Amino acid sequence: MGQKIATRSKDYSQWYNDIVINADLAEHSDVRGCMVIKPYGFGIWEAMKDALDKMFKETGHVNAYFPLFIPKSYLSKEANHVEGFAKECAVVTHYRLKNDPDGKGVIVDPDAKLEEELIVRPTSETIIWNTYKKWIRSYRNLPILVNQWANVVRWEMRTRLFLRTAEFLWQEGHTAHATKEEAIEETERMLDVYATFAEEFMAMPVIKGIKSESERFAGALETYCIEALMQDGKALQAGTSHFLGQNFAKAFDVKYATKEGGQEYVWATSWGVSTRLMGALIMMHSDDNGLIVPPKLAPQQVVMVPIYKSEEQLNGVAEVADKLKEEFKAKGISFSFDDDDTKKPGWKFAEYELKGVPVRIAMGPRDLENGTVEIARRDTGEKNLVPLAEVANHVEYLLEEIQKNLYTKAKERLDNSITEVNSWDEFKEQIEKGGFISAHWDGTAETEQKIKEATKATIRCIPLEKKLEDGNCVLTGAPSKFRVLFARAY
Amino acid sequence: MGQKIATRSKDYSQWYNDIVINADLAEHSDVRGCMVIKPYGFGIWEAMKDALDKMFKETGHVNAYFPLFIPKSYLSKEANHVEGFAKECAVVTHYRLKNDPDGKGVIVDPDAKLEEELIVRPTSETIIWNTYKKWIRSYRNLPILVNQWANVVRWEMRTRLFLRTAEFLWQEGHTAHATKEEAIEETERMLDVYATFAEEFMAMPVIKGIKSESERFAGALETYCIEALMQDGKALQAGTSHFLGQNFAKAFDVKYATKEGGQEYVWATSWGVSTRLMGALIMMHSDDNGLIVPPKLAPQQVVMVPIYKSEEQLNGVAEVADKLKEEFKAKGISFSFDDDDTKKPGWKFAEYELKGVPVRIAMGPRDLENGTVEIARRDTGEKNLVPLAEVANHVEYLLEEIQKNLYTKAKERLDNSITEVNSWDEFKEQIEKGGFISAHWDGTAETEQKIKEATKATIRCIPLEKKLEDGNCVLTGAPSKFRVLFARAY
Repeated sequence: MGQKIATRSKDYSQWYNDIVINADLAEHSDVRGCMVIKPYGFGIWEAMKDALDKMFKETGHVNAYFPLFIPKSYLSKEANHVEGFAKECAVVTHYRLKNDPDGKGVIVDPDAKLEEELIVRPTSETIIWNTYKKWIRSYRNLPILVNQWANVVRWEMRTRLFLRTAEFLWQEGHTAHATKEEAIEETERMLDVYATFAEEFMAMPVIKGIKSESERFAGALETYCIEALMQDGKALQAGTSHFLGQNFAKAFDVKYATKEGGQEYVWATSWGVSTRLMGALIMMHSDDNGLIVPPKLAPQQVVMVPIYKSEEQLNGVAEVADKLKEEFKAKGISFSFDDDDTKKPGWKFAEYELKGVPVRIAMGPRDLENGTVEIARRDTGEKNLVPLAEVANHVEYLLEEIQKNLYTKAKERLDNSITEVNSWDEFKEQIEKGGFISAHWDGTAETEQKIKEATKATIRCIPLEKKLEDGNCVLTGAPSKFRVLFARAY
Repeated sequence: MGQKIATRSKDYSQWYNDIVINADLAEHSDVRGCMVIKPYGFGIWEAMKDALDKMFKETGHVNAYFPLFIPKSYLSKEANHVEGFAKECAVVTHYRLKNDPDGKGVIVDPDAKLEEELIVRPTSETIIWNTYKKWIRSYRNLPILVNQWANVVRWEMRTRLFLRTAEFLWQEGHTAHATKEEAIEETERMLDVYATFAEEFMAMPVIKGIKSESERFAGALETYCIEALMQDGKALQAGTSHFLGQNFAKAFDVKYATKEGGQEYVWATSWGVSTRLMGALIMMHSDDNGLIVPPKLAPQQVVMVPIYKSEEQLNGVAEVADKLKEEFKAKGISFSFDDDDTKKPGWKFAEYELKGVPVRIAMGPRDLENGTVEIARRDTGEKNLVPLAEVANHVEYLLEEIQKNLYTKAKERLDNSITEVNSWDEFKEQIEKGGFISAHWDGTAETEQKIKEATKATIRCIPLEKKLEDGNCVLTGAPSKFRVLFARAY
């Protein structure tokens, strides 16, 4: 119906882009690497944000806000950290423009050069730990359980809407603890929060695991992650939770007085998810007709389209819509009635399909006579005639069903995509088919790098749920005690 | 109790600062002009944000997100706009750091210079209208009613926490309309939303008006504002709503096909409030004991402090607290029980007073015997003994009373602070006393400037509710048809 979406099986990458653009989720701006998140896309992000924020607060966290700018010297205080971020950061060097004396427009005022350059935050560990230094004196000030919703900038050369953009939105939790054990517990707790959110709200099953050393966050001792599998068989890292040890406390000299009267460095964690989750959500469930949004995250859960030839018929349907609106409102279900007379029902059906509205109600002249409506679910396309008195309950049930069905389908896909591989030939063959490969690895960064160069596959994680098993590294044959998960990834 | 707050009547400015710092609302960061909003302060901002966001949505607006960076050339497209913002903006010139070959640390990589400098948004009209150009083809695409919650940067040389910071948080609405009338209607609607929010949530009475030409937003045809009066007699602009005419549509060539088949430039508005409102809130109600937060914005509405000498007594009070917690929860009232045994009740009382918690409940051994608690309200200091069965209802009523009382007191102060002045001598005398001066003005920017230079007073607004009255300009004696409001301002 006017909208063109590439076929998923033929051109996955184009299919993804077409959905992002045509479902009005986001678009490229004229500023390199920066996207515009359009209202419909932002509505989904807001639903994610609300759900996550609630979970953070339920686990004892509070929100705060720290500066956008980080003095260059701060970034340098933790050696691995600056190594990880220096190559891709936006640098503010001046604080004023002036009229161009030689022509039109404005130029940077050379007299307004900053003494020290400021980096637009790529992540906030340094500025936050510089602040925590002032907040923490004794064990009584601990733990600090703070989260921040913010924009960050990492200068990316190759960008893709939601998946990889120079500026993106995210949340970053930064916690401070008296002991190593508490910090590790927090790191694991937040990984669980992310996994629960992914599964219950995004209907996206994930594998929880730990990153290999080379995939670790710059400055972390251990990076925990949740990994999801997209429909094209590629993995996507959907959230990370870092145990930072005492690295940042040492870099910023943050010590606390212990109960016993000593002085100890503080233990830290940080954890984050970003608008990248939007990319994961899109790739998780959508099809050749467009986006599919799980009901719990849908900005619009139910839409009703009237089919009519006369004003009288339209009025009849509108009356029904008014009643349904009240019934849905009472159930906390978002509902809208689309009586725009400049568009035909068929166009509207395609449009709501494209936008992934979970449930569509249609009502025509015959339905008016019979006291029924046609209810279609977006995930399976199944349609049912439902008597008016049962509509609200039926839809309520259907929304739950859709949420469950999306998860079940995705879970089956994930479960069927993990292949145990025991030889290098098998590995090379299997990696072309997509999905996760479960294989033995000798634990060295060198082997990891060689496998990556040969196959573009990376170690996605060492699963938390792993069984001990004697084996041999799939590449080198060196002994190994457990399998790790490899995949090509976004 | 350890916290020191300057006396308001002696040193208003220090008093303000002491409250911001000691009530844990915000602090200066090491980055010049950028503040850290601490969890307690951020909790109040979140309550404001939630209330405003709901009001925006109820008036048909949706949220979206636009890039942080604005290409330098975009800022220049609207002449007044660039004039207004060029002198105070953060400029990104490079996108990479590299290791300093001559020493430790990192330096800006000279090979990573941007072709065109990027400005960290001081406001988003230009980047948004450059986007709207792609969104708007015909009258069917209008109106566009979009809001964005974001951080912005205006390089300020003299900063004050919340009131004037280089980076601040705000929302900016940007709407596009087919007709001038609709755009003006929107501008006025959003001014009303701001006024309603200020009065109903912040308990802050405001005067609605229009700015004089010299105080207008850079690029607007008309700036509407709400002005509030602080306790020291200085005015504070609390929110603005701009009718932008076709200025930005012309600068970015945004036309739409009319119903009749013609091509017209689109009409625009923009409107915003910022974390500056936090400053207004603090100065509006607080006293020498600390912050006073209106119940509707309090992150913590009720706190209960046990007074005990034995474990048994503490357990008795804790049991009562458990029951009350459930009762408050059912009423949607936020409640916490502070049984921290490392702090004394007196210390806690002072702390919650400092933080402006609206209602404090204390319960000691005698209360336990009698089945009562002591309930103290923060605004008046009044205390009452209340039987346990009545506590929840009493507190519910009290929270409403406090909200009303704060507004009533502030409204009386505002009403008593507007003085009609008819001569220049009177003006000079009255301005020293603080408050608004209602006076005739000849309508010229020249006179406005002279008055400002002589008295530091500016025209705060031409009130929307003004009566026509023949008079003479207070400085020049030239004829005038109505009075305007002058004041010294933040």
